[in-house]
Amino acid sequence: MSLERRFGIAGVGTYLPREIVLAADYDRLTGLPLGQVAEKFGVAQRHRAAPDETTSWMAEQAARSALAEAGWEPPSLDVIISACGVMEQPIPSTAVLVQRRLGLGGSGIAAFDINATCLSFLLAFDRVLAGFALKEWRRALIVSADIASAALDYSNPESSVLFGDGAAAIALESDGPHVRLAHVFRTYGDGADLCKIESGGTRLRPADGIDQFLDHATFQMDGPGLFRATSRRFPKFMQELLSAAAISSSELQCIIPHQASRAALEHLKRSLPGGQEKTVDMFAHIGNLIATSIPFMLAHARQRGLLGEGELGLIVGTSAGVSLGGAVIRW
Amino acid sequence: MSLERRFGIAGVGTYLPREIVLAADYDRLTGLPLGQVAEKFGVAQRHRAAPDETTSWMAEQAARSALAEAGWEPPSLDVIISACGVMEQPIPSTAVLVQRRLGLGGSGIAAFDINATCLSFLLAFDRVLAGFALKEWRRALIVSADIASAALDYSNPESSVLFGDGAAAIALESDGPHVRLAHVFRTYGDGADLCKIESGGTRLRPADGIDQFLDHATFQMDGPGLFRATSRRFPKFMQELLSAAAISSSELQCIIPHQASRAALEHLKRSLPGGQEKTVDMFAHIGNLIATSIPFMLAHARQRGLLGEGELGLIVGTSAGVSLGGAVIRW
Repeated sequence: MSLERRFGIAGVGTYLPREIVLAADYDRLTGLPLGQVAEKFGVAQRHRAAPDETTSWMAEQAARSALAEAGWEPPSLDVIISACGVMEQPIPSTAVLVQRRLGLGGSGIAAFDINATCLSFLLAFDRVLAGFALKEWRRALIVSADIASAALDYSNPESSVLFGDGAAAIALESDGPHVRLAHVFRTYGDGADLCKIESGGTRLRPADGIDQFLDHATFQMDGPGLFRATSRRFPKFMQELLSAAAISSSELQCIIPHQASRAALEHLKRSLPGGQEKTVDMFAHIGNLIATSIPFMLAHARQRGLLGEGELGLIVGTSAGVSLGGAVIRW
Repeated sequence: MSLERRFGIAGVGTYLPREIVLAADYDRLTGLPLGQVAEKFGVAQRHRAAPDETTSWMAEQAARSALAEAGWEPPSLDVIISACGVMEQPIPSTAVLVQRRLGLGGSGIAAFDINATCLSFLLAFDRVLAGFALKEWRRALIVSADIASAALDYSNPESSVLFGDGAAAIALESDGPHVRLAHVFRTYGDGADLCKIESGGTRLRPADGIDQFLDHATFQMDGPGLFRATSRRFPKFMQELLSAAAISSSELQCIIPHQASRAALEHLKRSLPGGQEKTVDMFAHIGNLIATSIPFMLAHARQRGLLGEGELGLIVGTSAGVSLGGAVIRW
């Protein structure tokens, strides 16, 4: 079985909310002594979405940039996949809202969501590449947008100051110079409680008691537990991924990781040869954008010219679940 | 481009909650005169989930039946996709919770969600068939489970008494006698407001005002508008689907539809030759199970021996979005 898939990136786009929250603001929000959020968590600043900067609106801005760079008329798309950490609303799916915002509400273009929390983009990308390989689609738009600030509990610094808001979009085409050499995605549901938002779905309901609902409406994370659950599985996971790509880690030129936390990024850099220099790290200024981190960093890497033709690159991350996922790409 | 995909169904499973709500109960809940819910909406009864019958728990029951029929050990699965209308909780994805319930929490088996509201299963099925065609996966489990009763507003009979709760699971394998001949999925985001639950995602937040949050926490539907938006597009959509399969509608032997409403089912039956006899219709006793309707009806049709070898079948439905979707299958 080969997972080699050819593709092109026709355009990328990103959006960051207007409002900037500084590390000192987080010190106040969390009640920590001034300077602690910067020192302990590696935070310089984050962007925070205002009420008009909704998930689908931010996704639209990123998508318009990606489509403009591609030079594609929106109606030429074959499929729009939304790959967010959390949806804008439970019904309908976020991709539908983005389709409408792009003026495609009468187009019939297929629009649906794929959700694997912070690795949603990786899964959407994989399913798009399958569609390309089977000649089902020629042009695909993947949008990711997340508003972590909608559900943060600042009384718990560790599970709040890590996160920022933002959006990214990647316009993918079936013909192009890039080849995904390998893809691995492993889920370990034993860690499902390490990272969660419980209220907002079918289980906890406001009608059953508003206090209980509100108590579980914010993001809860067991940071050390999550780090243990993913880091102990990381070596075997990387081995599997590199082996599937038939390369060694020293051949990787550019590492595009999910921006889980400073600790996770430092762990990744130490785990791979030359990791310090090769890893795209915007954690200090952008933070963990949930599902948006990976496409945001991919867009940034492309705009900065970090994806040299023929060079080997890695996309890699962890997500609530817990899952570990990655892809090796020859750019 | 061919969308022909070979597959097998190794097992199916369904689950219905213990509690049965009768049409007369709905008369009381909605304040309608006795007999009206049965007469006007075609409701005999629905099943309603108790607090212990959560989305992932019901999915587990259906999945265990499907795996038992298949004779598969759960660890032999390559992928678990959850295709629900609404997730159990925003983070992590529902597939992860089902994976853990199946005792696979340490397995690493890939688990993620696909969401297109009532057509989530159709999309998950399509992406699984792509994975089969590319030899990425050999055994896939798709689970759907929905608890519509979590968010119904009984002051609006039309958008509440249609719905029931339940779960279904389909164990799919890459080798098998069936061939999907065609797949069409069309989204028209202009209709995004016709069918919605607004609270529970990133846009409406309890912290911004609990009253507004609660006002938008139930399912809202413009029934006539939705019927118009989908029925006017239905002829062209069916033509496209049948043309892609290179068959005529009179060749269809078994029609497995989403159970949107009695009106929608009657419209479908009238639209297709022999539709009255060929259509699987459990609306009176099961109701609209959101994303679970299609796999539930598929499981039922298979258990009843309605999928005759070599016969042509149709899976078809509409969803919030609005989307129209369908597949033609040679069983």
